[in-house]
Amino acid sequence: MSGIPPHLHRTVDQLKEEVAALHAELPRNNLVVWTAGNVSARVPGSDLLVIKPSGVSYDDITPASMVVCDLDGTLVEGERKPSSDTAAHAYVYRHMPEVGGVVHTHSDYATAWAACREPIPCALTMIADEFGGEIPVGPFALIGDDSIGRGIVETLRESRSRAVLMANHGPFTIGTDARDAVKAAVMVEDIARTMHLARQLGTPVPIDRADIDSLFARYQHVYGQ
Amino acid sequence: MSGIPPHLHRTVDQLKEEVAALHAELPRNNLVVWTAGNVSARVPGSDLLVIKPSGVSYDDITPASMVVCDLDGTLVEGERKPSSDTAAHAYVYRHMPEVGGVVHTHSDYATAWAACREPIPCALTMIADEFGGEIPVGPFALIGDDSIGRGIVETLRESRSRAVLMANHGPFTIGTDARDAVKAAVMVEDIARTMHLARQLGTPVPIDRADIDSLFARYQHVYGQ
Amino acid sequence: MSGIPPHLHRTVDQLKEEVAALHAELPRNNLVVWTAGNVSARVPGSDLLVIKPSGVSYDDITPASMVVCDLDGTLVEGERKPSSDTAAHAYVYRHMPEVGGVVHTHSDYATAWAACREPIPCALTMIADEFGGEIPVGPFALIGDDSIGRGIVETLRESRSRAVLMANHGPFTIGTDARDAVKAAVMVEDIARTMHLARQLGTPVPIDRADIDSLFARYQHVYGQ
Amino acid sequence: MSGIPPHLHRTVDQLKEEVAALHAELPRNNLVVWTAGNVSARVPGSDLLVIKPSGVSYDDITPASMVVCDLDGTLVEGERKPSSDTAAHAYVYRHMPEVGGVVHTHSDYATAWAACREPIPCALTMIADEFGGEIPVGPFALIGDDSIGRGIVETLRESRSRAVLMANHGPFTIGTDARDAVKAAVMVEDIARTMHLARQLGTPVPIDRADIDSLFARYQHVYGQ
Repeated sequence: MSGIPPHLHRTVDQLKEEVAALHAELPRNNLVVWTAGNVSARVPGSDLLVIKPSGVSYDDITPASMVVCDLDGTLVEGERKPSSDTAAHAYVYRHMPEVGGVVHTHSDYATAWAACREPIPCALTMIADEFGGEIPVGPFALIGDDSIGRGIVETLRESRSRAVLMANHGPFTIGTDARDAVKAAVMVEDIARTMHLARQLGTPVPIDRADIDSLFARYQHVYGQ
Repeated sequence: MSGIPPHLHRTVDQLKEEVAALHAELPRNNLVVWTAGNVSARVPGSDLLVIKPSGVSYDDITPASMVVCDLDGTLVEGERKPSSDTAAHAYVYRHMPEVGGVVHTHSDYATAWAACREPIPCALTMIADEFGGEIPVGPFALIGDDSIGRGIVETLRESRSRAVLMANHGPFTIGTDARDAVKAAVMVEDIARTMHLARQLGTPVPIDRADIDSLFARYQHVYGQ
Repeated sequence: MSGIPPHLHRTVDQLKEEVAALHAELPRNNLVVWTAGNVSARVPGSDLLVIKPSGVSYDDITPASMVVCDLDGTLVEGERKPSSDTAAHAYVYRHMPEVGGVVHTHSDYATAWAACREPIPCALTMIADEFGGEIPVGPFALIGDDSIGRGIVETLRESRSRAVLMANHGPFTIGTDARDAVKAAVMVEDIARTMHLARQLGTPVPIDRADIDSLFARYQHVYGQ
Repeated sequence: MSGIPPHLHRTVDQLKEEVAALHAELPRNNLVVWTAGNVSARVPGSDLLVIKPSGVSYDDITPASMVVCDLDGTLVEGERKPSSDTAAHAYVYRHMPEVGGVVHTHSDYATAWAACREPIPCALTMIADEFGGEIPVGPFALIGDDSIGRGIVETLRESRSRAVLMANHGPFTIGTDARDAVKAAVMVEDIARTMHLARQLGTPVPIDRADIDSLFARYQHVYGQ
């Protein structure tokens, strides 16, 4: 771990295990095919992140194969090239200090809304609970510079949602840690699917703003252990 | 088991095992993602119910993690907070003495009908067999008081259906015991899916009322061992 | 095996094993939920059939749980009540001597076409290969007498298809043996799904009758080992 | 290995293992049912290919069951009849020397586009990355002569896509090796599904040609290890 301060070695090892294990949730929840999709975690108290290497099969992901980058996306430790989406993850960590985990997938229903550049309307209590309103659409952005990261941050800053549908591309989700961001990725696909089915069926009835606010406030404070 | 009368200890232990095992049917039948969805059972001969704790992953559910509440939804035994839907389950047991099990999911097709506040019409012999007619829609109700429970009970009392689609929320099902309520949850999603596909395709042909009655009567008395 | 002639005991035992194993293909191919769906086999050289008992879970199906009936659907051997669809299977065996296996499911896409009482048009080479033309719709028939069996036989006699979509009910398939009928059940759902998707997308282009004939003839004579 | 030059025995053995293992990716990614679908690999430095035998179940596929044919599709080694699609694979290898692997499936979403004879438009960055533009439709062709192979080659030669949707039939994909062709088969179904969902939802926004070119160029040169 040449480029990593010694006092962080143990934390980095734990995060590699956690991030490797969380990658298994992506195929398990039908969010990815082949090697698409990636999970990262911020290394707390540092300018580092742990992320999946590029183009590696989900069967071959191990804690040891995870790579560590700084918040400019430069490789700090690891034998493989980091995910080609590392720059976008790094941009989010640089500009949203409250974020501890980022996930990107091309999950089919969420990506279908992204292809139409339509936000997912809030007509389900689950959307109000988890995302506090509609799931917003981010700009069309090419890979290769800060465009994707900037598009994610600018869109999420104006929303209570932890998910953004990047135009013609797919969802990015954030969370307090990597597990919370994976949960958001699972939930946004489930919501995208249910609302797609509802739109096919007829006219989904939107939930009133006051009810959304009440559901969101309760869920943030009451749910879970 | 401090709050539970000694003569019920064995029954409660058996129900914890049964309810824990039945939770595995929810992901297996694609009715839930992450921690959404819950199964409960009435403890016969008492004012108690067994239910899933809140926000616990399906992989981590064990008989020991199940909690026991009274029929006001107050925790009687268990180390964790009960499911946030416990008040709705408890209301059903208080007002429908014939019910021995309750299930709640956000299964995608049933929830899509709920988002449109449209009942599922009876155009399949399987719907007539299992539910005796269309699957009704319940009112929009916020969590936090008796609204959801009351909405379930008022809707099911006017129907032969064991399933109700709560508006913008998702299905609740009831049964003579927890297994029967889980079966109803599996069947209502299958029916919701098939009828959604039929609606996309063209015009599903409704079944005559007399034929529905005949199918329902036969199925209640003849089917199974 | 009290009601079965001794010289058939070994054949019946083999068929029980085969039919029990083939039932596992139904959930594996997403053709059934809970206990819906059943497979039967004719006992060659006799007026007997082997079928699934009623209302038994797919996890609990074993060769020993299979039941034997005569071709009037009367139980000849076994500890459980035969499937409630036994009369329909028996009618097919009585009237179609070339049939060695029958399968019934409520697979969702095929049943959606059945709910709309629309035949599945032949716009895929796979449909021409396997079924020689469109998949026909059978009449609406109530369970309890010969209506379902008669509807199946009358529809299939006028078609090259091994599958019929019984109105508002679901698909029945036939085959030279039970495995062939299960294959037809798997294929008809796959075809029903692809043609449903094609209809949602636009206008599926039908295949010319001469090409259908040529594909069907080749597949019957050339395919397989 | 009577018909195979001794210096190729080891290569052929390795390809049989690889091609047998890759067949498992087809059901795992929901691209096939029953025995439909096949993968082949060119034997480098020879006029031979390795392919699946006809009508064999995916559970029964082993390296030893793979067969070897020459590039006219004639069996050179193996105990079983080669896949009925061997002539089409062989034609591709004869006319596209850069191709090392070919895959054919009837995956449902890609086949739905093929049934409507509609190309899949490029409204997703993943399509631009992987296929460099829309997925083209090939001609309607009957099995039995060179028509299918010729249709594949003529269509792919005018496109950057590694996938072609053969009219009323299904997708064929090519790759530098068999694994690359399997990846293309997985990706084309995922893309076909997402674009189908987007079309159902509203109006997918196409990506500009210049952006497609930029994405395609980067992906060819930068992605992976």
